[in-house]
Amino acid sequence: MMQMDAIPTTRAEALEADSRDPLSAARTAFDLSEGVIYLDGNSLGPPTRLSLTALERTARQEWRIGLVRSWNDAGWIDLAANAGAKIAGLIGVDPGETVVCDSVTVNLHKLAIAMARRSESGPVIVEADEFPTDQYVAKSVADLLNTEFVRVESGAGGRALAQRGGVLVKSVVNYRTAAVADLERDEEAAHQGGGSIVWDLSHATGAVKINLKAAGARAAAGCTYKFLNAGPGAPAFLFVDASISVGLTSPIPGWMGHAAPFEFDAEYRPADGVRRFACGTPPILSLASLDAALSAFQGVAVEDLERKVRNLGDLCLARAETLGLQTVSPPVGSRRGGHVSLCHDDAYAVVQSLIARGVIGDFRAPNLIRFGFSPLFVRRQDVWDAMDALAAVLASAEWDSPRYRQRAFVT
Amino acid sequence: MMQMDAIPTTRAEALEADSRDPLSAARTAFDLSEGVIYLDGNSLGPPTRLSLTALERTARQEWRIGLVRSWNDAGWIDLAANAGAKIAGLIGVDPGETVVCDSVTVNLHKLAIAMARRSESGPVIVEADEFPTDQYVAKSVADLLNTEFVRVESGAGGRALAQRGGVLVKSVVNYRTAAVADLERDEEAAHQGGGSIVWDLSHATGAVKINLKAAGARAAAGCTYKFLNAGPGAPAFLFVDASISVGLTSPIPGWMGHAAPFEFDAEYRPADGVRRFACGTPPILSLASLDAALSAFQGVAVEDLERKVRNLGDLCLARAETLGLQTVSPPVGSRRGGHVSLCHDDAYAVVQSLIARGVIGDFRAPNLIRFGFSPLFVRRQDVWDAMDALAAVLASAEWDSPRYRQRAFVT
Repeated sequence: MMQMDAIPTTRAEALEADSRDPLSAARTAFDLSEGVIYLDGNSLGPPTRLSLTALERTARQEWRIGLVRSWNDAGWIDLAANAGAKIAGLIGVDPGETVVCDSVTVNLHKLAIAMARRSESGPVIVEADEFPTDQYVAKSVADLLNTEFVRVESGAGGRALAQRGGVLVKSVVNYRTAAVADLERDEEAAHQGGGSIVWDLSHATGAVKINLKAAGARAAAGCTYKFLNAGPGAPAFLFVDASISVGLTSPIPGWMGHAAPFEFDAEYRPADGVRRFACGTPPILSLASLDAALSAFQGVAVEDLERKVRNLGDLCLARAETLGLQTVSPPVGSRRGGHVSLCHDDAYAVVQSLIARGVIGDFRAPNLIRFGFSPLFVRRQDVWDAMDALAAVLASAEWDSPRYRQRAFVT
Repeated sequence: MMQMDAIPTTRAEALEADSRDPLSAARTAFDLSEGVIYLDGNSLGPPTRLSLTALERTARQEWRIGLVRSWNDAGWIDLAANAGAKIAGLIGVDPGETVVCDSVTVNLHKLAIAMARRSESGPVIVEADEFPTDQYVAKSVADLLNTEFVRVESGAGGRALAQRGGVLVKSVVNYRTAAVADLERDEEAAHQGGGSIVWDLSHATGAVKINLKAAGARAAAGCTYKFLNAGPGAPAFLFVDASISVGLTSPIPGWMGHAAPFEFDAEYRPADGVRRFACGTPPILSLASLDAALSAFQGVAVEDLERKVRNLGDLCLARAETLGLQTVSPPVGSRRGGHVSLCHDDAYAVVQSLIARGVIGDFRAPNLIRFGFSPLFVRRQDVWDAMDALAAVLASAEWDSPRYRQRAFVT
């Protein structure tokens, strides 16, 4: 059982807890703006100073001066594997079992097809409250492979796998509620039924302790622009267990997944291990930013990340309760991902009025105020002050204005 | 017939021709290094000044200060469609028929599957000298769809399509030789046989005049980091004819291809038109660089691009002949893409020794020296001087040294 911290009950206690935070030094890695409390690092992480420097170096030195030579001289050719290796420790796998490539969507497509072909039979399964894209990908893969698509109720994916085999596409942390999946239980069910799971780590990596190998997980993909702070639209990562990778076939064979990319063979020969799932030329600028952003996690224990996000979430929920707000997230004291969703009939307008006060969270339809507690830079005092702002917004009903009600795209 | 320019026969004539070049102003858009003749813009284009500025603004202002708000406030959400629209004019399609997303590899996969499903029968076809990745993708799509994979000899793709239908994946400009495909003839054959072609425009866009709509083309993908100068690993683009897009199903449905991405529907509802082929969150940094790089093409006639690359290629070939070098490229006076490949048994070492002299071309196995003539910034005088350097390298045999023979990755 993870040791839990007491929930601050005053701003002074919040400050005091911050002063004892083992992650407090990590905040200096970020180039944060004054006067903004950023509770949306679960959607788009802010830049680390090292990412900004890396981007400038990659563009102005490596691209402008080095030109095509930088594929060798600046190590661009190894960047996807190197950045992938740095993520391995955050998800409990070996450095050679991860690679950075494509988007989460494309990686789920590749992995779901590869795992379905391995299972040879059974449906493609998702749970009803799964992230929409994961549902679309699962259905599309079933269509492509002429197999059944099954949508089961929330939490019933493991049971379906045990009974019917096939492939389940499932998030480790739910994007709405932040509920955390039971990897061991679901993997046990998958083994029972002869099926497999493609885990989506997007809302989990960098916020909760994930030990994929210990749980028996064999395939996963995840996002780098949320808690990993790689930058807008940065490429995703992908994990395949080394003991099965040689038997897997990616449906999108590209030259970066070839055993010898520069031989320009007419016949495809997949690289050993997870690299066979890389395909096109990787986006070097974003990769350089990711690689640099991951430095902020060096020396950080994943236990400390999860312990902190739970404490920040608990603090948010405890104060929300005093404001009479309901939540769809796991309650105070439970295991939970890096965010919390509070219910309000006018959630959109409330979020907008908070943004006007410098507290940035996001809205999820139809009625959720979502706050993310990215553990490397959000402090207890930030959560305290954000909840003060929320209390003020609700007390004054300042959200109830056409200015805040008018909808625009929000991610 | 395109009007052709005389081939300079002296350096003075080269300089004189440069002074009359309608594209000469475009060169000032680039931040080029002194002392380097860059003949590898066909592999990785150099940065425009605007791209470097856009990257800095996107990272330091929009990402760092704007944070997640920049999806709306900085227009990130529209960037993929806007950049796509700017490419439309270079390939002869309407602005609403293109989108920027994923890599060329992933886009070929999506389009080949969508077009194969539309045709309903017939093999997936490639020609024997096709770019290796295109061959891999074609074979993989055939495997996925349980249909036949057919590799025909070079130039025989259209004939195969006319006879058997199905889907042909074909480059408009061959990556080795720079031979240009006959789009009208092949599309005519495709219509005859009830099949379709997925065109790969990677080595063509920004170098030759392409008029996809006039040729009856219905689907294409292409690269942005070559002649479009978007930056290393920048995302690819994708075209689908508006009159058929509503009947096409992308095999990778992601939220960016959804009709209403922010409604988070459990059911996928594809966007109208080509945007249904977008899938994951687009890489904003690279997109910003691409969008800025495309400004260098504003006001440029595609006829002038092709006319210039042919003149530069002719100049290279005419001088190569005096050095006794053979070519696999279309000869002087023929239609040709933006590069030329010269044969030499020790091509790798020759290329390395040229790089040491500041003339950057690339090597393609087993025996090709490849020079690219990116028309916005390469001048006749550059080609003249590069061929002087090549003559000197060959005359002195300075390439014949372990330093230049030692192989490293070269892209």
